[in-house]
Amino acid sequence: MPSRADAAPAFLWVPELAPGRRRLEGEDSHYLVRVCRARAGDHVTLTDGRGGLARATVQATGSVVELEVGPLDRLDPARGAWILCGAPEEGRADWLVEKLGELGVSVFQPIESERVSWRSAEARIERWRRLAVAALRQSRRRFLLEVRTPLPLERAVAELPEEARCWLADSKGKPVPEALGSRVGLEAAVVGPAPGITAHERAMLLEAGFEAICLSGGRLRTETAALAWAAWWAGGGAGASEQE
Amino acid sequence: MPSRADAAPAFLWVPELAPGRRRLEGEDSHYLVRVCRARAGDHVTLTDGRGGLARATVQATGSVVELEVGPLDRLDPARGAWILCGAPEEGRADWLVEKLGELGVSVFQPIESERVSWRSAEARIERWRRLAVAALRQSRRRFLLEVRTPLPLERAVAELPEEARCWLADSKGKPVPEALGSRVGLEAAVVGPAPGITAHERAMLLEAGFEAICLSGGRLRTETAALAWAAWWAGGGAGASEQE
Repeated sequence: MPSRADAAPAFLWVPELAPGRRRLEGEDSHYLVRVCRARAGDHVTLTDGRGGLARATVQATGSVVELEVGPLDRLDPARGAWILCGAPEEGRADWLVEKLGELGVSVFQPIESERVSWRSAEARIERWRRLAVAALRQSRRRFLLEVRTPLPLERAVAELPEEARCWLADSKGKPVPEALGSRVGLEAAVVGPAPGITAHERAMLLEAGFEAICLSGGRLRTETAALAWAAWWAGGGAGASEQE
Repeated sequence: MPSRADAAPAFLWVPELAPGRRRLEGEDSHYLVRVCRARAGDHVTLTDGRGGLARATVQATGSVVELEVGPLDRLDPARGAWILCGAPEEGRADWLVEKLGELGVSVFQPIESERVSWRSAEARIERWRRLAVAALRQSRRRFLLEVRTPLPLERAVAELPEEARCWLADSKGKPVPEALGSRVGLEAAVVGPAPGITAHERAMLLEAGFEAICLSGGRLRTETAALAWAAWWAGGGAGASEQE
């Protein structure tokens, strides 16, 4: 393991971020002191998860941590990705959310489709939101993955920003075009649930302007297709780091 | 769920595949009869995992299944992908292997690096091989992911076929080039372990002709980087389906 001296400064999500004196309690102070082993005098990096970033200096540690927060540097998102995702098989959503967060996806929108609903999604959303925060810390990003509550497919499509370029993960689609993962703008993908979308849903999406693309030579599970799409999207912007 | 009549024929891995009469026992017959609910008269698809594919007809079911196997259709792999992968954090290797199998990667080569070794890898290899078979069935591929035993990084690099185009997942690398995921040929990637590779290892890889590429605007975990690379590679060949 790298020694403490080699390590990058601790990175935290602080939703209401402003310059000046600030206290951290509970999980945040635990993370900073126990996990990152931060001490008085150490520098840390804070983000509000909406593009704002600030350096801070640890003033005192304990169950409550005192920080002196410097000026905010704000970045507007040059690009964004929404994933409208059907329910995968049981037990596969947690790591999907974690990976989408690491890859810098903007919005995770669970969709209820004609064949299948998300089971007890409401109860899991708080967990997914915690996983999104952990993924932001891990990948040191300025933008937090937004985890939304499930919507029926048609309503989720209606809520997409008008300028979004829309893709449908589809083993019968055309090969991944170069246009996927462009350096600016908003892109969105629909990924069907484990048993797939219906012909009716597919027709609705194509009618709404979605382009069907094939992400692999084989059949992919829901979570694998969502991740493969996100990886393509992430790679397209890899030159434009949103890190500190 | 789609009804049994809508379902694609069951898909099985049978390492020694030849036309004619054949019996399936144990896990294979269980999978066919209990999971796929195959009955006498049903068609199934078999692959040897090395490019061979055959249709077969179920003659009789029970604890032993009788099949009549048709002629073999053989495909040579037009492209291939090797992943030389350092150890991720605990508990993250299983699904990585599953996803690499689904995406059609050819070889999973765990590497021992200067900073970290694979813990009890020997004991887990049989499990990873079972996961690779399950991923092949799921994605209906002709080529089985080969799970190798761990090697030191330098030896693993020395064992790469000479013609391989070699990549290094590296947050300081250049953006993903179009050349990644070309439609033919062999490509290989080194993905460092959770604490990263050392400067010495990096220099050795660059010297050996590896190109450092950045897969995302953020810092990725080992398993996420391996998967992101595999998704890019898979997308490049998505038009050339290896399915039936």
